[in-house]
Amino acid sequence: MPDFTATKSRFHLPRGVTYLDGNSLGPLPLAAKTRMAQVMQEEWGEMLITGWNKAGWMAQPGQMGDRIGRLIGAEPGHVMLGDTLSIKVYQALAAALALRPDRRVILSDTGNFPTDLYMAEGLIETLGKTHELRCVPPEEVEQAITEEVAVLLLTEVDYRTGRRHDMPRLTQKAHEVGALAIWDLAHSAGALPVDVSGGKADFAVGCTYKFLNGGPGAPAFIYVAPRQAEATAPALSGWLGHAAPFAFEQTYRAAPGVARMRVGTPPVLAMASLEAALDVWDGVEVAEVYARAQELSERFIKGIEATCPMLTLASPRDPDQRGSQVSFHFEHGYEAMQACIAHGVIGDFRAPDIMRFGITPLYLDEADIDRAIAVVSEVMTDDLWDDDAYRHRSAVT
Amino acid sequence: MPDFTATKSRFHLPRGVTYLDGNSLGPLPLAAKTRMAQVMQEEWGEMLITGWNKAGWMAQPGQMGDRIGRLIGAEPGHVMLGDTLSIKVYQALAAALALRPDRRVILSDTGNFPTDLYMAEGLIETLGKTHELRCVPPEEVEQAITEEVAVLLLTEVDYRTGRRHDMPRLTQKAHEVGALAIWDLAHSAGALPVDVSGGKADFAVGCTYKFLNGGPGAPAFIYVAPRQAEATAPALSGWLGHAAPFAFEQTYRAAPGVARMRVGTPPVLAMASLEAALDVWDGVEVAEVYARAQELSERFIKGIEATCPMLTLASPRDPDQRGSQVSFHFEHGYEAMQACIAHGVIGDFRAPDIMRFGITPLYLDEADIDRAIAVVSEVMTDDLWDDDAYRHRSAVT
Repeated sequence: MPDFTATKSRFHLPRGVTYLDGNSLGPLPLAAKTRMAQVMQEEWGEMLITGWNKAGWMAQPGQMGDRIGRLIGAEPGHVMLGDTLSIKVYQALAAALALRPDRRVILSDTGNFPTDLYMAEGLIETLGKTHELRCVPPEEVEQAITEEVAVLLLTEVDYRTGRRHDMPRLTQKAHEVGALAIWDLAHSAGALPVDVSGGKADFAVGCTYKFLNGGPGAPAFIYVAPRQAEATAPALSGWLGHAAPFAFEQTYRAAPGVARMRVGTPPVLAMASLEAALDVWDGVEVAEVYARAQELSERFIKGIEATCPMLTLASPRDPDQRGSQVSFHFEHGYEAMQACIAHGVIGDFRAPDIMRFGITPLYLDEADIDRAIAVVSEVMTDDLWDDDAYRHRSAVT
Repeated sequence: MPDFTATKSRFHLPRGVTYLDGNSLGPLPLAAKTRMAQVMQEEWGEMLITGWNKAGWMAQPGQMGDRIGRLIGAEPGHVMLGDTLSIKVYQALAAALALRPDRRVILSDTGNFPTDLYMAEGLIETLGKTHELRCVPPEEVEQAITEEVAVLLLTEVDYRTGRRHDMPRLTQKAHEVGALAIWDLAHSAGALPVDVSGGKADFAVGCTYKFLNGGPGAPAFIYVAPRQAEATAPALSGWLGHAAPFAFEQTYRAAPGVARMRVGTPPVLAMASLEAALDVWDGVEVAEVYARAQELSERFIKGIEATCPMLTLASPRDPDQRGSQVSFHFEHGYEAMQACIAHGVIGDFRAPDIMRFGITPLYLDEADIDRAIAVVSEVMTDDLWDDDAYRHRSAVT
């Protein structure tokens, strides 16, 4: 088991705050401040343009891609950092559809994070409305994987409930009917053990500002399975994905493998912060973090259910079916979460009625969970939620 | 005339270095370091997820878009920050083609920066090869603007020679035949007066790490003319370009105007640096910077031509035809530029034979220009460039 006291000491955690929203934005790793200052002064400041080679900026998207790759079970050399998750979804989806030219259906689920669906819509428009985005409820995905399906586009862990899809099983099902599988690991990378290689994902995408603590707006990543890498046509064929970017050729030639998924100039300052955040993961196994998150989640569920009868568990009760978050339904969830935040416990609200708490063992321990339970209980036993009083207070605030 | 001594004092310029590559990567504004430290500690560190509203991160792409908008003559509310220039080219091009559904030609020139051409190629593939990318030499663009053309995609200032297109004239010509015009302002924004509104550009895109000094990998921007804004279909329809991102609707609805050109989560740390860089522009008019750049450029050309007969001017001799850079042809340009850099004068090399020097008055003065002339002259009079000696030295280094 990693030394979680040690990992916790590597983050800045504001005094008086218990932070259960690391599944939305991870906290500041202390070393990110010094690393950033160093990159700004010693690299950008002193090296100027020569930093691209001298400081190694140009190589970082691939190097950090590999560090993330270790956390998601990717083969070395097959993960690339850059852009935002939305852009990476578009890249993966465009590439996958090009690999299945005779099929017309993108299969997703209604629990997917909306931007994945929106990007699919935009791509379909661009393709000339030749394709269909078919969205079924999460529990009906498996039956909906038919030979019509070109590509399965799913987020492994539901951003509202934490419900986890069976990635290897659904991927296998997709492959059996000749479809490809793209997995969005936004709520998986750094949260739970993922094995994109063993699970045979064709593409995977994710972000680094949640469980990986890269900072607000930190870059995304994309994985392309080795067996697809050389056949992948990059729709967003930017110069840094060219086989020879500095030859400034007139015509695009894709770089080998996942490097073709690079688009424009990499975000050097954002990468400085992310690099320090990834250092925290050195010597830490995601499986151990997940096991610890399950313990803490069970403690949290038990504590909340014992004290807050008006909250209904929205997450699966079986720990193996959950990511590293716990969610509850509550009619006045938005206001209740505001009250929790005012009392120093930061979670998140997701429409229509979800109170969401991220369980992130790198910097959360039993004492934090107990404090969160106490604060949520206190907020929930307030007469604020008595219906008449609620209406009254809502009207005046 | 702005106080250029004052603006120069706002940058970190390494001791012993004369920096003529600010058209590739601008130097570090001193205030960027403090601003970054503040955003990391006081905003990300202390506010955590609440920074999106409390620190105003979510609104910054539009606010900074407007600050850039002032420098390119845009109407307020019509410039949005985000992503990379390549991505912004794709967005503009996809939107423009959708506005001209009956036409099939993207007209560009062979002097365009390759990524613009590559992104056009990728889009054409995605569209099903229904379109043609037609590239003519820069001087033939005007005659090539015919009724076949859907959209003119040009970079105003050539990245190798500094040759400047007549943006209002070519735009007018495009409009006369019913085509749209997209202008890439990579080497224009912060370099020379641009008037996207008066010049009637339909779309404009640009980057912020060159003349705007935002830092390595700083975000790009996009301008959409008010008359096109509501009709523009965003191909990259990400959640932050949705009319109600936090309603998490299943279907995409475009946000009003240029806000629909937002895609994913904005790069908060990169924006911190850029914000400090934009502060340097407060009270500074681009026209005055450009006038000063022309003075310095003339001084540089005169000095180099007087002392380096083997260098041939690659930039237009007429200052009004040039951006803020001066380029020379030289057969051994790559090695010569390496030698200049070793002697403390940083310029850039662009294949096949261009030595490129950026003229950036915010932090360059006559003494810098004179020092650069002296160093280039010294390098060029070295017997290094005697053919036999050159072959010898190349073989051993």
